This record gives sequence, structure tokens and C-alpha cells, in this order.
Amino acid sequence: MKALVYHGPGQKAWEEVPDPTILDPNDVIIKVETTTICGTDLHILKGDVPAVKEGTVLGHEAVGTIVEVGSGVAKFKIGQRVVASCISTCGTCTYCRIGSPSHCQSVGGVGWILGHLVNGTQAEYVRIPFGETSLHSIPFGMSDEEVIFMSDIVPTGYERGVLDGKVRPGQDVVVIGAGPVGLSAMATAQLMAPRSIIAVDLDPFRLNAAKKAFGATHTVNSGNPGWIDQIKALTRYGGADVVMEAVGIPATLEAAFELVRPTGRITNIGVHGKPVTMPIHNLWIENITMTMGLVDGTSAPTLIDLVDCGKLSVKQLATHRFALDEMEQAYEVFSNAAANNALKVVLEA
Amino acid sequence: MKALVYHGPGQKAWEEVPDPTILDPNDVIIKVETTTICGTDLHILKGDVPAVKEGTVLGHEAVGTIVEVGSGVAKFKIGQRVVASCISTCGTCTYCRIGSPSHCQSVGGVGWILGHLVNGTQAEYVRIPFGETSLHSIPFGMSDEEVIFMSDIVPTGYERGVLDGKVRPGQDVVVIGAGPVGLSAMATAQLMAPRSIIAVDLDPFRLNAAKKAFGATHTVNSGNPGWIDQIKALTRYGGADVVMEAVGIPATLEAAFELVRPTGRITNIGVHGKPVTMPIHNLWIENITMTMGLVDGTSAPTLIDLVDCGKLSVKQLATHRFALDEMEQAYEVFSNAAANNALKVVLEA
Amino acid sequence: MKALVYHGPGQKAWEEVPDPTILDPNDVIIKVETTTICGTDLHILKGDVPAVKEGTVLGHEAVGTIVEVGSGVAKFKIGQRVVASCISTCGTCTYCRIGSPSHCQSVGGVGWILGHLVNGTQAEYVRIPFGETSLHSIPFGMSDEEVIFMSDIVPTGYERGVLDGKVRPGQDVVVIGAGPVGLSAMATAQLMAPRSIIAVDLDPFRLNAAKKAFGATHTVNSGNPGWIDQIKALTRYGGADVVMEAVGIPATLEAAFELVRPTGRITNIGVHGKPVTMPIHNLWIENITMTMGLVDGTSAPTLIDLVDCGKLSVKQLATHRFALDEMEQAYEVFSNAAANNALKVVLEA
Amino acid sequence: MKALVYHGPGQKAWEEVPDPTILDPNDVIIKVETTTICGTDLHILKGDVPAVKEGTVLGHEAVGTIVEVGSGVAKFKIGQRVVASCISTCGTCTYCRIGSPSHCQSVGGVGWILGHLVNGTQAEYVRIPFGETSLHSIPFGMSDEEVIFMSDIVPTGYERGVLDGKVRPGQDVVVIGAGPVGLSAMATAQLMAPRSIIAVDLDPFRLNAAKKAFGATHTVNSGNPGWIDQIKALTRYGGADVVMEAVGIPATLEAAFELVRPTGRITNIGVHGKPVTMPIHNLWIENITMTMGLVDGTSAPTLIDLVDCGKLSVKQLATHRFALDEMEQAYEVFSNAAANNALKVVLEA
Repeated sequence: MKALVYHGPGQKAWEEVPDPTILDPNDVIIKVETTTICGTDLHILKGDVPAVKEGTVLGHEAVGTIVEVGSGVAKFKIGQRVVASCISTCGTCTYCRIGSPSHCQSVGGVGWILGHLVNGTQAEYVRIPFGETSLHSIPFGMSDEEVIFMSDIVPTGYERGVLDGKVRPGQDVVVIGAGPVGLSAMATAQLMAPRSIIAVDLDPFRLNAAKKAFGATHTVNSGNPGWIDQIKALTRYGGADVVMEAVGIPATLEAAFELVRPTGRITNIGVHGKPVTMPIHNLWIENITMTMGLVDGTSAPTLIDLVDCGKLSVKQLATHRFALDEMEQAYEVFSNAAANNALKVVLEA
Repeated sequence: MKALVYHGPGQKAWEEVPDPTILDPNDVIIKVETTTICGTDLHILKGDVPAVKEGTVLGHEAVGTIVEVGSGVAKFKIGQRVVASCISTCGTCTYCRIGSPSHCQSVGGVGWILGHLVNGTQAEYVRIPFGETSLHSIPFGMSDEEVIFMSDIVPTGYERGVLDGKVRPGQDVVVIGAGPVGLSAMATAQLMAPRSIIAVDLDPFRLNAAKKAFGATHTVNSGNPGWIDQIKALTRYGGADVVMEAVGIPATLEAAFELVRPTGRITNIGVHGKPVTMPIHNLWIENITMTMGLVDGTSAPTLIDLVDCGKLSVKQLATHRFALDEMEQAYEVFSNAAANNALKVVLEA
Repeated sequence: MKALVYHGPGQKAWEEVPDPTILDPNDVIIKVETTTICGTDLHILKGDVPAVKEGTVLGHEAVGTIVEVGSGVAKFKIGQRVVASCISTCGTCTYCRIGSPSHCQSVGGVGWILGHLVNGTQAEYVRIPFGETSLHSIPFGMSDEEVIFMSDIVPTGYERGVLDGKVRPGQDVVVIGAGPVGLSAMATAQLMAPRSIIAVDLDPFRLNAAKKAFGATHTVNSGNPGWIDQIKALTRYGGADVVMEAVGIPATLEAAFELVRPTGRITNIGVHGKPVTMPIHNLWIENITMTMGLVDGTSAPTLIDLVDCGKLSVKQLATHRFALDEMEQAYEVFSNAAANNALKVVLEA
Repeated sequence: MKALVYHGPGQKAWEEVPDPTILDPNDVIIKVETTTICGTDLHILKGDVPAVKEGTVLGHEAVGTIVEVGSGVAKFKIGQRVVASCISTCGTCTYCRIGSPSHCQSVGGVGWILGHLVNGTQAEYVRIPFGETSLHSIPFGMSDEEVIFMSDIVPTGYERGVLDGKVRPGQDVVVIGAGPVGLSAMATAQLMAPRSIIAVDLDPFRLNAAKKAFGATHTVNSGNPGWIDQIKALTRYGGADVVMEAVGIPATLEAAFELVRPTGRITNIGVHGKPVTMPIHNLWIENITMTMGLVDGTSAPTLIDLVDCGKLSVKQLATHRFALDEMEQAYEVFSNAAANNALKVVLEA
């Protein structure tokens, strides 16, 4: 089959590799029908994720059809349409059993193994370990584009932003960063009937998308002087009940420390590469809670239902479409997302 | 009456001042029978809390008897024994109504006003604003020493440490700092049946007290090389479920960032004077929660009941006793707590 | 002033009575500008609530303007527009301090005292005990009809139905009874993005209102044979995640016992006059939770905000309008609500 | 092998049956070293559980050693000592994934299948379906008697009594029924530092055991006239914060309805055979919560840890010991538990 193979920093190719096979009784093999590219894949290509070995097939998001199941798999049958979680969930380790498969201990001590520690989804076929607990069936009539973002970014925005933030009706919510994950946080924050969803970004295209399609009630360009005060003035209590950081740099997390009101919550969703200075000399008295973490993916069945019943729409994240074997062009476009007004690129077999 | 008056950085005196009077229908005046000194009082004397004006009577902890009540006070009568909360709770502002009187908006935007924004408890008499919601009655038969620490430090350790930490049966708990608040956190953490309570301090006297009288199951001297690894080895999962910071300096909070296991919780109880470097580049993936904040005091009635029914004992915090008019000597001893093997000094009328 | 006075079972009159006066420093007197009639008032008139003494002014819902405040009231000023809670909240007793003023102990051991144990709101003026904690200010620009239902029925539906039911995104919710409280539960259940809100009633007018104006996604007439199975077929798991009973008779609560799915929740909102047979021999194994209780009213500020920011609309509960001194005609219409296609009658000064 | 086989109502025999074999890749076979008898087994023998077919091996509690694992089992190895959960947890169905394997859908729609829908543990060997998620490893050094009750009754008392009851420090807890499950509820309620644990039973032997070995602070004989008032007088608020029903008859659940205070919780743990009359006409206003359900068993790892670290002791439930092939005598003793002063009988290979 063809797959996108990592060959070390800056090196990748859409090339012929062996088809995946069942290695464990709990494996499932799916034919990939739709996949996408994640910001993390770009980090891998920059060499930022040394655990990824040369020769690994990248990608951790996929919709497809089951073509083979291991002998231990009872729940799924050949021919079923499924969406793969970016988190491979053994279902039996300590962390899986407390509902935190993000820290599944079965392979390498982390739940994210696809396109990281084992071959991933940017390929014609992919082996899904722990298939019964790592795949979700797709309701009849739902399109691939409606579910592909359930592999990773929509659960990420919902679990690490909205659920960790404990967003409640009537609250003021600020989301810093209107990239795909930030927009997913906004779209799912709407489920909780907040008073406001204030989108923050430097890119007018993304701010516009936030307001038009993802539920932002207000947009604030963080390039403006005085943007922090501008946000505070929009809130009912002079600060946000919940601030979600969806960028991953010190400046935006430091802004979150300023924006939260006493008794509020900060949820870090962004992937960071550097430490941040936390003004604990100011915050110790503020009765705030800060959360951070990798997605678990456990919310995906609920989120799929919500799309199915019309309460949630996230397919507008897909701005560019490619055939699966146009993978390299898709990477080109996504690597220059801002210049291309791209949110997510979708590849379909 | 006599009171301990602040006269600017480094300056204080036990001197004659006018008796307090009812200024508001919700005021209550108590005759102070037992009070104590808090680390915060020492900070004020160093000039670290500029909001405290010269001429203010210090102190925010007291047990006493009601001698006068305002016309709006129905719940309390003259002659009742009460313990004052360090937090004055108006009961009607936004924050009080969501259960966070730490941020009561009625006087100066903070719940701690006694010995800070208004005259405090290190005096023969004290006016307690919002008396109905800021005083707790004392069950028959309880001694002053059994309840005096319910004004501040025991609720602080319990609310900001144990409750924010969501300590559950079977967990590994680390408390960094075995001063009065850290010891209060340990004593109350026992209520939740943790697997371990690991006390950390530099002072062997305090570590010994932690183990003998406050429920610590293990003690670790943070002056030892390798103390972090020593703690990790004591835990079931190579890290603590809950780490409580009860010191207030960057090094100990940074240790907390290292000690917490994935999915664990860090609760900051300490009062900090400097920012801290948060290793968000490591922590973003760890699914941890960090809390911080001032005490609300709302747990005091429960804690008093727990002492009354024998489930909790905290009077062993009192290591040194003075008469009320020996206030200056008591400050002397408490200012050199380590040298004097002092935990809390108690002053009794 | 004029007021609606209870003169024993079946007897009432809109008649002259003395104006209310401040009796306690925490009292507030308001000029009633809008009030309404509750099903409970009809129960009182039937003689079902013997605690109500002859001579009592009825009514526990009001919007008005403050005309006098007691000496202990700091939060409100003369001239402010406010909505009164049906629950008088002392703010200092054990129950108030745990967030359950429904059981406020200060007057008669229950939070509902207006038009029950003291004179109520169906009058030109009313004394509100514990005014600071029992009145809510009204945002600029909101009409009386937008807030009058925040006195009782909207918080009742939200607190005892939606919050007790822990309604979450994607769930199937059944509300039995499409009277004013049931419709309030439906309107506020929408805030949590359920998959379905299934309205159940015998009255086609009310079912139609449920669907047109209160968020019901489906309506089921419980007069139809097989209506229980019809509802089960509408749910994703063959039973509801949350069933709310908003009628108050054994048959409807028994239907709730049948309709809930394993691990689901039943919330009783209805006022009952008879015991019910609970099929515990079937339910003991079902892992369900059942809640019941009087409104606390603590959610009113949030609900007012939600109306103010456009996330919630409940004014469509007002189907009939009268002048205040047409009180007796209004009772006539409301007593025959079904024949008159009435939901709530509104009386305006 | 030998096993206790059900031959229809009133009929059972310890007889030769075929050894179990691996039927599914996720099966594990254990050599039973310790087992016990449950009240449910007696119900089956009375014919109360018609789903049990003649020829079924009874029993759903066991400690043993793994002798064979299916090809899908990675977590366990031959030779490991394990305790079996009475709940067989597939880990992949809707209910298992929300943490409620009590309603596991994989076999017969209920999590309890051992000795019910498939052959059970009162045998020399037993096949455990879904072994990875239905067995718990045993820490080095723990005896069989320390863990055998983790199969069913200790998690039952803890999950359905203590956790559902949300027992918190300082509360008054009443446990009606001092049989093995009620005693388990008492033993584990202690973990939450309640003010009181009031044990209720008719049997002085059991009441004495409750006080001596399971943490009851008070005992009340429900044969005494006025026993309900006696309990109320023991509580701080004239009623219990949490009432646990651990008998399973209408009279005791009706007593729970009387004993709970406003805002309190009733947890039904007992297995009922008849409906109960619920006084909803009194309770609708009481803001109480009632829970009921089958054990999930998910707390077993925590409970095992708590025994291991000395925070919990339940082995005193074992009052009578037999060899495995004395199964019929053990049934004889346990069927007449009261006359024999028996709590649990233990059978050891």
C-alpha cells in the first residue's frame, strides 16, 4: 500500500510500504477512507518529537471501513464504518480504568501511539491496536467529514477545554487561539449555553470563521494594544469565568493568567515547547483552578451523537480537500495554513 | 482597651486604644478570650502588605464571648461563646452567594479584612462585621484551644489543601511544608483515608511533630539530596496523587510540579511573593489540575463538629501560651518559631 | 392598600388591608408592579395547606420597586427594581449556608413563607423578609414579564428538574407534564444541549406550546394507549436518561419509574398529595437516582442573566394579562386554565 | 472437577462436572482457592432467580490462581493470584465505558453472570469471561480472607452505600441491616470520617459485631418500640444525612424514608422482592436524593489497596471456615446464619 512515511527531520514521502497485518488478537485493520493532518504531524517533521522513529507512517486521525479483525474482537465486524481515536485505549491498565486513556500504559506509557510509536493513519490501511476500545462506530447517514474531526481535535477542545473548564450556562468564556482546536473548543462550548464566547487570535480570517461558524459571540485581535482590557470589558465580572489557552506559547498562557476572574478556571489545551512564568504572587489569592492535559477521546461517542442529532456542527473545519495520494500537496497547504486560509485539510480515498 | 497596634514596618505596640463600637446593624462585638498570631501578621510587620494602614489593630483569629450585637443580628445573643472567621462574609454579594466569601466584595473586595482593612482580634475587644455569617458558635464543653485554629489555619489546610485536592481513600498525598498550615492540611487529610501522607520540611522538629501528632505516615527532609526521588519511591504510582504546597516559595512549588503523577492534583496553599517557573512544556500532557486560593472559612462548622465528635484533633498546634497582655513577648517567640520549636502561640485573656 | 386575602377554604377577596411596614432591620418593602398566580395558591384555596391562616395575603411571586428598606439592608436602595424569590432566605441558618434555603429555618422551618406564613405578593405592597438575600436586582432594559417567572417556576424547573437531573449534552430527556413548571423545565433543559426533550401531557394545547415555544423536540399524548412504548422508541437507549415528573400524581410518577433507563435519573418536581407505589423489586438493580424537593431559588441570578443575554426565553408563559385590581377575574381564569388555554396569568399594576 | 451444581428449586449437589475450558480469547481460567456463599445463592436455591438454568454451577466470589489464559489476554499470566469480580466487565459496551459494568450488555444485559448465566465459582476451577477487566491482582502478602470479600460485598457496601450516599466528614450515617453487606457499608463508611455510624438490626449478635469490628458508633435494635425516634435523637439535625438500606424489605426502606433529614440521601443496597410505598406526599418537599443499584465492582482495586495499607479491615466478616468439598455443610450453616451466628462462611481448597 501507499503511506506517508517519516524519514527524519524535514523528510517525508508518500511511498509504497507493506500492508499492515494483525499482530495481536485485539487488533483491527481498517481501510482508510478519510484522514487529515494535525499540527502535531508538522512538529514531528520539524524533529520536535524524537520518539518518532524513521520509517514510521504518520497520522492519528481516520475514518474507514473495517477489513480485518483479530480473534479477540467481538464488538466489531468486517465492513463496519468506524472512526479511529487518536488515543489507543487498552481498557485494562490503571489509567484506562480511571477514565484517562491519555495515559494508557500498554504501549510506551502514553495513549497517543498512532503515527508516533506505531504506524499511523496517513495510509491506505492502518492497524488499530485495542480496536474494540479505540474505534467508534458511525451512525447511518453521517458523512466522513462530519466525523473525521472526532479522532482528535473536537474531543480535545471539548474535554480539555469545555469539560475541564466546567463551562456552565451564563458564563463568560475566552478562547485564546482560533486554530482548529480553539475553534473546536468554541463549537463545543456552545453546548453549555455560556453568556459569551470571546475568540482571540491575530488572524482576521480565523476570527471571522470563529464568529461565522463556531459560535464566537465576540472576536478580539490580540495584535491590538489594549486587547486584554478590551476582553475584560466584555465580561460581566471584569474577567472571564473560563479561559482556554489553545496556542501553546508563553505569551498566550500569561494572558490567560491575567484574564481569569477570581474563582475562575484556566484550561490549557495548547502544546507547549517552553516553560511559562506563572505570577503565583498574584494568583495564590485568586481561588482559580488550572487544568492541562492530553485528550482522552472518551467523549467521542457523545460528540458523534450530538452531530447526528443536529446539536453540533464541526464539518466547517474542513477548508481544503485532497485525494489520499495528494498527501504531499496537502502537507504543503497545511504547512502554510495562514497564507492559505486553511483550517483543516481533508484527504479522501 | 489594650490592643496590638501596627505603626508601620517594623513598628508595633500593645497599647491603649478606644473600645470598638457597633457601626453597622450587622456588627457583633466580642470580648477576646483567646487569640493567636499568624505568619501573615509577620508579613504585615515587614511592610509586605501595604493595604494595612498605620494605626490598625492586627490579628484575624479569635475565640470570645459576645458582648454587644447590632440591631440586624438575630442569630446570636449576648453571652454566647463564638469563634471568629478570618473571613468576614457579607452573605449577600455575588461571591458570598456562590460560596466563595474569600472574595466578598463588601469591604475592599476581599474577605480578609480583620487586622487588614479594619481593626483586628489582637485586642481585648473586637468588632466583627457581618457577625451572623462570620462567627461560629462553639459546642458546649469545647475548650478555646480546640477551636481557636478554626479561625484560619485549619480551614485553610482543609479547604485549599484537602478539598481542592479532592483527596480520596487510598491516595498518596504529599504536603510540602510542615508549618502550622501544612500540619493542618495533614491533620485534615486523614479524614479522607489516604494511603500515605508524606510530610516534607527542612526542620526535624516539625517533621517529628507531623508524624507524632498530625497524621503524617512518612517524613522526608528536603535538605537531603535525592529527596524528590525518595518521595516518588514511597508512592504507589511513582508520583503523588495530590501534592500540597504550604511554604510559598518558588523552589517548593517547582518541586510540586515534579512530584505530581499524571492525572494528579497540585494545591497551592502557600502565600507567595515571587513568580514561579511552570514547566508547562512537560506538564501540558500530564492531565493535572492545579488549584490556589485564599480560605473561605465555610468549612469551619464541619471542622468544629469533627473535633467535637473526636474525629479530628488540632489543639496540639498550640506549643506556647501567653497572657493577652504578653502580646509582645508572644510575637518575639513566634517571629523565631524555628529556634523556639514553636508551631502556634496562644494568647489567653 | 388592596390585597388578595384568604378567608378560609373557598373564600378570598381583593380588599383593603393595612400597608406593610418594616418589622425587622433586614426587611425590604416593595411596591408590586407585576405578580402572578401559582397552582399552589389554588391548593391553599381548596384548604390543602392548613398552615395558611385566615387573613393572610396570598402570593409568592412579584416584580416591583423598592420603597423602604430596614436599617440592616446595605445592598439595596429605594427605587431599585427587583424580583422577589418565592423563597425567603435568611442567609445565616444551617440550611441557607449549605445552599439549601428551601429549608431555611428562620421562619417556620421552610423557605417558602410569602403568602404562606406571612403576607404575600398579591397586593399593592409587600414586605420581603431577609431582603438582601431574597430579592434579585433586574438588569436595565428587562421587562417585568421577562423576570416575573424567576420568582418561582423557572428556578423550580431548572433546579429541581435540570440541575438535579444533571442533564448533559446528548441525553434523552422526558418531561411529564406540560404545565408552567414542566414547560420551565423544558425551556431550561435546552441549555444543556440534550439530544431530545420529549414533552408528555394530555392537553394538545400544552403539547403544542411545548413544541412551539419551550424547546420540546417531540410531544407524546399520555392519553394514547402505548404512550410509554412510544417514548421508549424515541430514545437512544430504550429509556430516558432523565425523566422529570411535573404533575404530582401517582400515575405520572409511576410512569417515570418505567421510562428511566438503567443508570438514569428521575427528578420529581410535582407537588404530591398521595403516596406512590415504587417498584423497588424492579428498580433496585437499575442504578438509578431519584431526586425531589422544593426550589431554592439560588439559580435566579443566572437565569436572569441568561434571559438578558438571549440564551433563554420564558415570557411566553404569560398567556393572559390583567390589571392588579382584576385579581379575582384572574383567579377565575387561572382556576380553569385548561378551558381557557391558560399557562400563566400576569397581573400588572 | 467438583462443583456445586444447581438442579432446580431446593436442589443442589457438590458433584463431578467437566473442567472449564477457554471459549473466548479474553477468557481466563482460575483454580479456585477460596470462595464463599452469598445471600443471592440462597435466593437462587429458593427458585427466586428463574434465569438460572438447571445444571449451572453457582457462586460469584473467588480468590484463585490463573491456570490458563486466552490468546487475547495480555495483562495476566499463568500463576498469578487474583480475585474475581462478581461483575463480568466486557470493557467495551456502552455501560462499561461510562463506568457502569453492572449493566454490561455483552452477556444477557447484566454484569452479574457468574453463577447466574454462566458457570460460577463454587468449584475447583472457573472460567472468567473478559478476564482482563474482571479480575484484580492481589498484592504480595495479602491473605485470601483479606480479599475474598472484594468479589462482591465490600464493593457493594462501598459503591452503593458510601459512594452513592456521598458520605462526607462529620455526617450522621444510619445503616439499616447489619448483615454482611450492611457491615461492609459500615466498615467502608468509616473511610469518610462521619460523625456517627448508627447500626440497626434485630439481631443482638450482629449489632454487637457492628460495634466491635465494623465501626458502628451506636447500635439500635429495630425491635424496640420507638427505635426511629431513638435514632433521630442520636443525630445532630434530627435525622440522618445518609440512610443506607441493606435488608431488602418494604418496612426497612419505609423506615429510611422517615429517618432521612431534609437535603439528605437514601441509598438502597438491599435486594427487594416487593414494591414499597413511598410517601412522596411528604418527601416531595424534602430535597432528598435516593439511589439504588447493583454493584459495579470498579472500586475493588482501591479497596484492596486500602486493606493492604491498613486503612480498612474486612476479614472479620469470615466467621466460619470449611474445606472446598465441605460445600454442602457450608450451605447448611449459611442458610441458618442467625442461629449459627454466621456472617460469611469461607471455603478454602
